[in-house]
Amino acid sequence: MKFTISKESLQQALNQVQHVVSTRTTLAILSNVLLRARDGVLELTTTDLDVGVTCTVPCEVTEDGATTLPARRLATIIRELPAAEIDISVDEKNYASIRSGPSFFKVVGLTSEEFPALPRFDEAREFSLPQAVMRDCLRKTSYAISTDETRYVLNGILFSFKNNALTMVATDGRRLAMVEQEVEFPQSQEIDIIVPTKAVNELARLCGDTGEVIIRVTGSQVGFDLGDSLLISKLIDGNYPNYRQVIPGEAKERIVLERETFQRAIGRVSLLASDKSNSVKFQFTEGQVEIIASSPDIGEARETIAINYKGKDITIAFNPEFTMAPLRNLSADEITLHLIDEISPGVIRTGTNFLYVLMPMRVNS
Amino acid sequence: MKFTISKESLQQALNQVQHVVSTRTTLAILSNVLLRARDGVLELTTTDLDVGVTCTVPCEVTEDGATTLPARRLATIIRELPAAEIDISVDEKNYASIRSGPSFFKVVGLTSEEFPALPRFDEAREFSLPQAVMRDCLRKTSYAISTDETRYVLNGILFSFKNNALTMVATDGRRLAMVEQEVEFPQSQEIDIIVPTKAVNELARLCGDTGEVIIRVTGSQVGFDLGDSLLISKLIDGNYPNYRQVIPGEAKERIVLERETFQRAIGRVSLLASDKSNSVKFQFTEGQVEIIASSPDIGEARETIAINYKGKDITIAFNPEFTMAPLRNLSADEITLHLIDEISPGVIRTGTNFLYVLMPMRVNS
Repeated sequence: MKFTISKESLQQALNQVQHVVSTRTTLAILSNVLLRARDGVLELTTTDLDVGVTCTVPCEVTEDGATTLPARRLATIIRELPAAEIDISVDEKNYASIRSGPSFFKVVGLTSEEFPALPRFDEAREFSLPQAVMRDCLRKTSYAISTDETRYVLNGILFSFKNNALTMVATDGRRLAMVEQEVEFPQSQEIDIIVPTKAVNELARLCGDTGEVIIRVTGSQVGFDLGDSLLISKLIDGNYPNYRQVIPGEAKERIVLERETFQRAIGRVSLLASDKSNSVKFQFTEGQVEIIASSPDIGEARETIAINYKGKDITIAFNPEFTMAPLRNLSADEITLHLIDEISPGVIRTGTNFLYVLMPMRVNS
Repeated sequence: MKFTISKESLQQALNQVQHVVSTRTTLAILSNVLLRARDGVLELTTTDLDVGVTCTVPCEVTEDGATTLPARRLATIIRELPAAEIDISVDEKNYASIRSGPSFFKVVGLTSEEFPALPRFDEAREFSLPQAVMRDCLRKTSYAISTDETRYVLNGILFSFKNNALTMVATDGRRLAMVEQEVEFPQSQEIDIIVPTKAVNELARLCGDTGEVIIRVTGSQVGFDLGDSLLISKLIDGNYPNYRQVIPGEAKERIVLERETFQRAIGRVSLLASDKSNSVKFQFTEGQVEIIASSPDIGEARETIAINYKGKDITIAFNPEFTMAPLRNLSADEITLHLIDEISPGVIRTGTNFLYVLMPMRVNS
């Protein structure tokens, strides 16, 4: 194998695939990136057997071939190379010679024949939406994924394709984020899948500002085809809880809040939330909300925001981090907080397609 | 105590003093910053009993007084405050009320009477030099300080005031950095002191581009007076090794190298230095130096730099990190490497006042 490639393209491609490589692996070849050069293209592939990424970049191929090289080490070397063009040639023993300006590196590789093949998607359900939309939906939900490994069905995002819509849901049992997006597909294609966290993170990284992502689903696998790159993942096997029943009914109070003002005020006040309770109190009274935290040994913090509120007095407590998480990941100037009473979940909404359900905490009066 | 201060000034002052506060301390008051307001000035002081820093900032004092507040927590709160001006008032129970725009914080403090007093420097030897020069000297030497706690006399920088010069030396036994600076003082003031690492780091942080630093030395303490701030430290008690005998005699080969080119080439090649040997080989031959690293299981790296060299062939190995450290901290375009032979220490020099002695490693041929 022999090819010439621009440093920038190779570096970008390695950045796209290298995160899949796990640092601790018992199978040496999984630390490596598969490189295949042919037809004026270099194809890079990594996998941890659960998630795999393939990415292609144009290059000048002098001799077709394939090998595997240590992914992280290769990325470090390429990043440091002094010249804009890189010559790589690999001999039959999988020794790669890398030349760039005055630098010469020889890196020991492993044969491409041992590299596990990624699954194929020949008979799959197929859905398509813009990459920018997908990235936005991931951003609005992924922070709510559970990290509790004993609740493995929650360790990912539910992608529910139903009624010509994609509903994405993440929850950890204390809060739930949901976003809905219109997508056209025949009713026969309706399906619910749970995409694991690692694949969610990779997908968020790969989605660009333009172009479509084609989602292909078979029984146990999902593939996200982004044109220049392809992400493949095993699905989480299990039934996602019925999230619709978590969403509270009609709210009595709908409070419009400036997103950034609200988020920053919570951020400041939470500095004095006690580690034990880790809760912040919100006192809604006519025309204002007062945000309060206190911690016996340390002190207290208060901040008042003027709002257009005419409802009954409500004092409700939330985990400050859980309250700020959606605010940080939305882009709308204003959000609406829906409250029923002091013990019912609060709901944050923006537009028609996003909602976030948050369980209240006990108020110490 | 009651005063009004600009957020920016208070934040800067806290940044200057808060690094001294240790995170783990058995004495609660050492986590606090002493605040004293009087005569239109707020004075902030922190200490860990070894090192202390005092810093003053102008403010509008309505009521004189003093208190102590948790340093890091206060710094976090001040950083987050929304308005440019801050009102702080402290009651007799040391409860501080902090107001800024819509934010209100109440922070529990401790009485200033329990805060340990910093030592005084009434009868001290006194030296003065520009802060910018001091900062440059610290930068050129501090990376070579030993972190081996069993060799405590090396856990700092030697400041040797002799023959109208300040010589600063740091070494860890494998390399030695030394810088000399002319300073005028009477011969009766000559003294050697060892300033511990923590004080070195604080001093580097405090030194500005302009102004003088006045150094005051008593038997066991040193004070660095920088005008708006004052750093005080215990000295390391012990005799610094005779560093002059480590500096090799007349060098046979004096090789001029472009500092950045040389540093970057070593950086790249060292990517393939084995963890075990952690050495990089330098082959000097007529007109060039080839830098080589190899690691049996991983591969090898080579890079050649054209230089003006007409001496005998020398192959010498150095620890790459130790070779790069001075290059990174110097600013001259060119450095001179002095070599005697393959087993004698190499010396890096710039100008007339800096030298760095580096022990070679065994070359595996």
